[in-house]
Amino acid sequence: MDAQALRKLFTEVRRKRVSPDEAVERLRHMPFEDLGFAKVDHHRALRQGMPEVIFAQGKTPSQVAGIFTRLAVHGGNVLATRATEEQYAAVATTLPQAEYRQLARAIVLKRDRKKHGKGVIVVVSAGTSDIPVAEEAVVTAELMGNNVRHIYDIGVAGIHRLLAHQEALAKARVIIVCAGMEGALPSVVGGLVGVPVIAVPTSIGYGAAFEGLAALLGMMNSCASNVSVVNIDNGFGAGYVASLINRR
Amino acid sequence: MDAQALRKLFTEVRRKRVSPDEAVERLRHMPFEDLGFAKVDHHRALRQGMPEVIFAQGKTPSQVAGIFTRLAVHGGNVLATRATEEQYAAVATTLPQAEYRQLARAIVLKRDRKKHGKGVIVVVSAGTSDIPVAEEAVVTAELMGNNVRHIYDIGVAGIHRLLAHQEALAKARVIIVCAGMEGALPSVVGGLVGVPVIAVPTSIGYGAAFEGLAALLGMMNSCASNVSVVNIDNGFGAGYVASLINRR
Amino acid sequence: MDAQALRKLFTEVRRKRVSPDEAVERLRHMPFEDLGFAKVDHHRALRQGMPEVIFAQGKTPSQVAGIFTRLAVHGGNVLATRATEEQYAAVATTLPQAEYRQLARAIVLKRDRKKHGKGVIVVVSAGTSDIPVAEEAVVTAELMGNNVRHIYDIGVAGIHRLLAHQEALAKARVIIVCAGMEGALPSVVGGLVGVPVIAVPTSIGYGAAFEGLAALLGMMNSCASNVSVVNIDNGFGAGYVASLINRR
Amino acid sequence: MDAQALRKLFTEVRRKRVSPDEAVERLRHMPFEDLGFAKVDHHRALRQGMPEVIFAQGKTPSQVAGIFTRLAVHGGNVLATRATEEQYAAVATTLPQAEYRQLARAIVLKRDRKKHGKGVIVVVSAGTSDIPVAEEAVVTAELMGNNVRHIYDIGVAGIHRLLAHQEALAKARVIIVCAGMEGALPSVVGGLVGVPVIAVPTSIGYGAAFEGLAALLGMMNSCASNVSVVNIDNGFGAGYVASLINRR
Amino acid sequence: MDAQALRKLFTEVRRKRVSPDEAVERLRHMPFEDLGFAKVDHHRALRQGMPEVIFAQGKTPSQVAGIFTRLAVHGGNVLATRATEEQYAAVATTLPQAEYRQLARAIVLKRDRKKHGKGVIVVVSAGTSDIPVAEEAVVTAELMGNNVRHIYDIGVAGIHRLLAHQEALAKARVIIVCAGMEGALPSVVGGLVGVPVIAVPTSIGYGAAFEGLAALLGMMNSCASNVSVVNIDNGFGAGYVASLINRR
Amino acid sequence: MDAQALRKLFTEVRRKRVSPDEAVERLRHMPFEDLGFAKVDHHRALRQGMPEVIFAQGKTPSQVAGIFTRLAVHGGNVLATRATEEQYAAVATTLPQAEYRQLARAIVLKRDRKKHGKGVIVVVSAGTSDIPVAEEAVVTAELMGNNVRHIYDIGVAGIHRLLAHQEALAKARVIIVCAGMEGALPSVVGGLVGVPVIAVPTSIGYGAAFEGLAALLGMMNSCASNVSVVNIDNGFGAGYVASLINRR
Amino acid sequence: MDAQALRKLFTEVRRKRVSPDEAVERLRHMPFEDLGFAKVDHHRALRQGMPEVIFAQGKTPSQVAGIFTRLAVHGGNVLATRATEEQYAAVATTLPQAEYRQLARAIVLKRDRKKHGKGVIVVVSAGTSDIPVAEEAVVTAELMGNNVRHIYDIGVAGIHRLLAHQEALAKARVIIVCAGMEGALPSVVGGLVGVPVIAVPTSIGYGAAFEGLAALLGMMNSCASNVSVVNIDNGFGAGYVASLINRR
Amino acid sequence: MDAQALRKLFTEVRRKRVSPDEAVERLRHMPFEDLGFAKVDHHRALRQGMPEVIFAQGKTPSQVAGIFTRLAVHGGNVLATRATEEQYAAVATTLPQAEYRQLARAIVLKRDRKKHGKGVIVVVSAGTSDIPVAEEAVVTAELMGNNVRHIYDIGVAGIHRLLAHQEALAKARVIIVCAGMEGALPSVVGGLVGVPVIAVPTSIGYGAAFEGLAALLGMMNSCASNVSVVNIDNGFGAGYVASLINRR
Repeated sequence: MDAQALRKLFTEVRRKRVSPDEAVERLRHMPFEDLGFAKVDHHRALRQGMPEVIFAQGKTPSQVAGIFTRLAVHGGNVLATRATEEQYAAVATTLPQAEYRQLARAIVLKRDRKKHGKGVIVVVSAGTSDIPVAEEAVVTAELMGNNVRHIYDIGVAGIHRLLAHQEALAKARVIIVCAGMEGALPSVVGGLVGVPVIAVPTSIGYGAAFEGLAALLGMMNSCASNVSVVNIDNGFGAGYVASLINRR
Repeated sequence: MDAQALRKLFTEVRRKRVSPDEAVERLRHMPFEDLGFAKVDHHRALRQGMPEVIFAQGKTPSQVAGIFTRLAVHGGNVLATRATEEQYAAVATTLPQAEYRQLARAIVLKRDRKKHGKGVIVVVSAGTSDIPVAEEAVVTAELMGNNVRHIYDIGVAGIHRLLAHQEALAKARVIIVCAGMEGALPSVVGGLVGVPVIAVPTSIGYGAAFEGLAALLGMMNSCASNVSVVNIDNGFGAGYVASLINRR
Repeated sequence: MDAQALRKLFTEVRRKRVSPDEAVERLRHMPFEDLGFAKVDHHRALRQGMPEVIFAQGKTPSQVAGIFTRLAVHGGNVLATRATEEQYAAVATTLPQAEYRQLARAIVLKRDRKKHGKGVIVVVSAGTSDIPVAEEAVVTAELMGNNVRHIYDIGVAGIHRLLAHQEALAKARVIIVCAGMEGALPSVVGGLVGVPVIAVPTSIGYGAAFEGLAALLGMMNSCASNVSVVNIDNGFGAGYVASLINRR
Repeated sequence: MDAQALRKLFTEVRRKRVSPDEAVERLRHMPFEDLGFAKVDHHRALRQGMPEVIFAQGKTPSQVAGIFTRLAVHGGNVLATRATEEQYAAVATTLPQAEYRQLARAIVLKRDRKKHGKGVIVVVSAGTSDIPVAEEAVVTAELMGNNVRHIYDIGVAGIHRLLAHQEALAKARVIIVCAGMEGALPSVVGGLVGVPVIAVPTSIGYGAAFEGLAALLGMMNSCASNVSVVNIDNGFGAGYVASLINRR
Repeated sequence: MDAQALRKLFTEVRRKRVSPDEAVERLRHMPFEDLGFAKVDHHRALRQGMPEVIFAQGKTPSQVAGIFTRLAVHGGNVLATRATEEQYAAVATTLPQAEYRQLARAIVLKRDRKKHGKGVIVVVSAGTSDIPVAEEAVVTAELMGNNVRHIYDIGVAGIHRLLAHQEALAKARVIIVCAGMEGALPSVVGGLVGVPVIAVPTSIGYGAAFEGLAALLGMMNSCASNVSVVNIDNGFGAGYVASLINRR
Repeated sequence: MDAQALRKLFTEVRRKRVSPDEAVERLRHMPFEDLGFAKVDHHRALRQGMPEVIFAQGKTPSQVAGIFTRLAVHGGNVLATRATEEQYAAVATTLPQAEYRQLARAIVLKRDRKKHGKGVIVVVSAGTSDIPVAEEAVVTAELMGNNVRHIYDIGVAGIHRLLAHQEALAKARVIIVCAGMEGALPSVVGGLVGVPVIAVPTSIGYGAAFEGLAALLGMMNSCASNVSVVNIDNGFGAGYVASLINRR
Repeated sequence: MDAQALRKLFTEVRRKRVSPDEAVERLRHMPFEDLGFAKVDHHRALRQGMPEVIFAQGKTPSQVAGIFTRLAVHGGNVLATRATEEQYAAVATTLPQAEYRQLARAIVLKRDRKKHGKGVIVVVSAGTSDIPVAEEAVVTAELMGNNVRHIYDIGVAGIHRLLAHQEALAKARVIIVCAGMEGALPSVVGGLVGVPVIAVPTSIGYGAAFEGLAALLGMMNSCASNVSVVNIDNGFGAGYVASLINRR
Repeated sequence: MDAQALRKLFTEVRRKRVSPDEAVERLRHMPFEDLGFAKVDHHRALRQGMPEVIFAQGKTPSQVAGIFTRLAVHGGNVLATRATEEQYAAVATTLPQAEYRQLARAIVLKRDRKKHGKGVIVVVSAGTSDIPVAEEAVVTAELMGNNVRHIYDIGVAGIHRLLAHQEALAKARVIIVCAGMEGALPSVVGGLVGVPVIAVPTSIGYGAAFEGLAALLGMMNSCASNVSVVNIDNGFGAGYVASLINRR
């Protein structure tokens, strides 16, 4: 039931073809959900600058290309995460302006280049193997209109490498920290700054790393109070949350 | 916004004090959820014979008594699960007609005695230690208007004791099976009958029983296709689901 | 020892070739299990309309074809779950009327088209990746003689999409909900309806989804009392349980 | 840069071969983290309005009183979480202006009443048993200078109760959601709003809730992209992170 | 249906009051389980010398006394495991000849003193804290008519203490090994002998012992092929299995 | 230090070239372990009829062939478990009399055909997928000189199929039960017989079967006292333990 | 068989009362374990300065006193870990010179005050709650003859507090690091120094700390290569290992 | 200390009110970690003889070759662990003097052949499958300038094989023990010697070995006090820690 139908009902009531009681009755049997206009509008505003997103993993190149093209019609930015070069090739045949960000394993169509974020988002990663996850966060935050700076390969076992970047960290409005193995970096970074830190456990490590579980538990128990955590390898989620914070 | 308010709006439209467009606009800014009449009515019907329920564990006797009395005002059946005798004593001072079912650790106020269930619900438990969980299921199902029969202490290691009850099982319309330790009983019962079996893992056991985890995993992997599972020790949930099935 | 043998024994008693005492003795040493006639008959009735089922995963195409053909002899419906196209091709050479349901990864031979279910079974799935599990439930329920309606891609993070289907949910006699990741959908659906909800955790997700464990635990702890749970990815089991309930 | 090099620099300054400004500049570009001057000051600013915090659990009343009094000397707000009435009594003997917030199990000394937050923080909790955790978040956020609104007892199994508060949710600048059992509420709330959601799993539940693990895993796998998670029962951490975001 | 009833049926067939066909029909509708004579007799033989057993933990003294007295009527041995002195006191009022084995936490009534075992059962325990579990195994095996020898406090970190008992081990017909912590002793013992070793993980240890899980996993992965495992702390089960083997 | 060296030392003492004190001294500095004659002899007896065993998984065909040939020199039986046809082909080139048991995935060289076992070992398996593990147990027990009988495909959800084999079970001296999924079969079998039952959890199942963990936990918590457990999929271990018991 | 017996045998050979062959035969049947002289002597040397140790937890005061007194007879140091004041009081009645180290929960009898360690052992702990574990390590190392320095309350979220102690860390010959929650401190410390770091996870924390499991996993996955780990809360083990290293 | 304060200090030095030495002294006592001069030099000394290390797993041959060549420029030893022959081939094209250690899966460039270790490191492994991990430890320790001796294939189920090597163990200054399955070997070895034992759990085993978890837990709970543990399969870490100890 859209506004049209509703207006029609009111008009009929006005014309006395429908009594108020009957109108109430009719309304009662309509699916009330379709009334939610405000919500949609409200959300439309909220969603300004938000990219349309596809989780490409496990989809065929043609599936990805199909969805990507459909979403691109809306005119905004489009992002496909966990994407392969094959999937990109399929997308590029219809959307040659789309790019493939290899490190981030992401297909990106950037059209809205407005800055929505108020400050800089810094993305930190512990080891070189964590870079794909960190880059997914970078790409996501960039596509959502943020200035992003990345600082890579500064693990806790070389704390001076981290401290050398203290100034950059101090300038961040939000920080994303990606780390596998023991997942200790967010605590150390969190202790150095006074801004929100989004921690991303990665599945990097072996043995008792248990595919990111060790890092996840470590981050959940961070002794730094400004740390909150997203799912293992969820660079996209971290970029998304950081972008929302940076718009506040 | 209730029906009253809505009728008033239609009346004003009818009286042309409000134009259809303005009416649509007003409706648009109302919290749409409050329109959901149908749902409430619909649910009221569905809820016929459903008891009001309190999870008493961790509440003080006076808290339980307070909530119990408030819910009793609606005139239906009231059930407090995981309740102690102290909590019952507090309830009984204002509601002396309430009963305490010791085995089930439940406080019961039964006023609606109509039978809503079409057949018999059979509640089976593996060991004597599983009886409190089984009795919670029994009390729940009874309070929801079912004929309930219980068969206790028939573990899988004494399969002939179970087979001796095959006739009773064959007459059930739904079966609840409570078992701790290896949690194997639902599979055996499930294989003997052609009706839905609700399995309740209990926290009975020690060592590698891991507080009901072994039984839970066993039941999730049941080789009998007619078995579905509720939470560890959740006799109430099993009684509730079984009652819904028995009303179909 | 079948009825034949038993009748012969009674005849010999009648003819006084065997004394009652001796007959009791003989009976005593017979394997008593083979007496269970009633059971079989009883079950035969119960099994009306039940498909014969093969779990095809891990079997060679020729093994699947062999078993499928043998089961097809009984004249009823036959279902092979977790089947590949290669397995289907092998089946189709001898049973060209068998179909392959690609989404459900199922081979289906449908001959009994009688409706055994009294109402509609609604199958809901949270994301597009959950569809194979949901379709397995759909195919199972259809083959067991039910009217099935499916509602796909309505996750909890878009609650209005779910609410838009409230009417359809309200008409269901049983609901199956398939969800991976946090597995929250059964609770929300369960709260909207007054009928049994069969929850199927799926292995969809990554990281801390732990191959469906997160969804499984979420569903076991559902705050909706009408939810019971089957194994991870067990669409067949959900379809089977729902069918039994719908026959009540 | 060793003592030698440093002495040489001072000597050159003494000999006026290097000006003080140039010396500072050189020092500034020497390794070891730019000597991190700014940091301390910077942090002082950042910490404005931050309460001093004590984790009271497991400490004796006199230990809590001792630490509390010592921290109170700085003149700012002081917060003791997981505190008992006995601990409060000990604090109150020297600091009678301290209050005990029973629901939150917190001792509070509020002196800085300046508003540091730009918008409203909404704290949502699923069940009544989750309130202590939610209240800990409320008290923390209030003490850090925020307007806080709480909405309690709106679980996912009664989605209309949640939707009735949609307007309040829409006005939040940050939302904290506390939930035990299946932990599904953050996903639903996250889907309704466009702001950051801090999810707090609680240890409420029994059986397969595994002391909050089920809720934790559920929240980590949230299908809403704006959700990040803190430790089980960590209301303080959620209040802290939300306050930082609300200051952005 | 007992032998009496069956004989009556045969007699009526003999007297031609009942035709063979009708007799078959009648038999068909009898609960077949009650026919199982042979089984009971057979089991009676098997059970010669088996004690009646009560798991006393969690039961009140009067409950234990009641069950104990009832089982004692059969004239055989009676064993209550995980029993307290209070429970023993209650038993002793009616059965003064019952003994309390403090180390084993067991109440024992030994009347059948016949040796059923063919050789010696050796019970080995790793540390002094494992002795209660080991003693439970000893008491069980003794009550089932075995010669039992125990060797205590010979952990793997003092391998020479173990080797000093090699001769005693070599004389065993079955060996029970109880160990907590890393649970390594069964492997070492298993490698020294050519007889079956029953391993009992105990819940002794702290930290990563996880209440016996570490020992359980260690024993399941024993590199000695003659080791099989019972539940954590299940001294009774080990004694029972060893007794059955020793009767072979 | 072998017997030769020892005899030489005694001879030198006898010839008075070495004094007793010096001889003691020399002995003192010899690695005492090499003295362990008795042990070896003792073990040689114990090992009569024991096959030499290779765990072939993860080894190259030529490695398997090399080890197999070397072990075959001793003249006894040789067994390679978890072996592929390729590995067999490599073995067969030098030992054409070796056989490949496809179901058991085992290479077998049987030369000692003496019966060492006193009774029959019955191997039971729950489903067809458990057969490889069961067959590994069968082959192992046969090679160790036992009469083995197997009963396959009798899961707990079809309890009458199991009961039909009760007589065969009753004749067993030891029983091995292999089951995946919920792992309930050992409990049921254990309850029917009075002999030791060796339970083998298999990794069969999906979802919450967790690669055999559910079955393992189920079996550890068996309510039948005559059950002990070996590692997941460890058919060899079960066959080995059962053989040792059957020799008693 | 001791040296005496052995000498007697050699003497008899010398006197030709026993032939070499017969002597070999006799030796062959002696329990070889008793020969192990060298080992004992060897160990006696190794054990110089090692304290006798009692794990007091779970023992009665009189049991602890009994064992303590018995061990004190040897004249060396005696240590009872996890001891209560009650247990100490019982010890002190017979050994008034014994001390109770409250923070470490240890009873200490120090008589050998020789320094066996070559350098300083530094014990670091992350939070005040970790101090009991750290103190247990300190007491152990002191009793084993080491200079010990402790640095407490320097968590990773306040990295500058840690860096302020860098000089002290640089002087250590071995470092013990005790940390609960995320267990990140060993990695940071490990990266600052070039000596072995013994990490001790503590059970401090709540929620997803899972009684020390999070810290344990974090430490196992340390990105610093000089870290090895002991059991949760095992301060004694860490002190012991560090002492052995410091003697090298 | 900010730039202002620093400039003031330089100005006072310039004005000769403060001598260079005094200025250095003041700077030294200023906050922020004494400027950590020494550290770098100090570390340079510590790192003498330490190899540069690459974790090759998951890297392409050209990536490994690139990093390897770059690190080789420093003139020290270079080690690539978890390396394939393909990766070696790529390295060898530019650095033909590099070797491939097949058993250890390591690429090695050894130029510094100085002995840094004071004694012998013994590397023990339980089974042949543990050899790759053990060899990684061997190669690491050798490259760090140690005499290394390895003893392979001495599991706990054949304790006499282990005892035969007791003398070799007694000569070790540090011992590394690699074991999968139940991981019991470190406890036994630890009990035989008085030196530090580094335990390495390996992922060898199947079923309940859970990829090394069983061995890891076993080792964490070792009853030998001289055992500390590194990550599953972390032969490199064990070799590194042992080397550091051997330099003490």
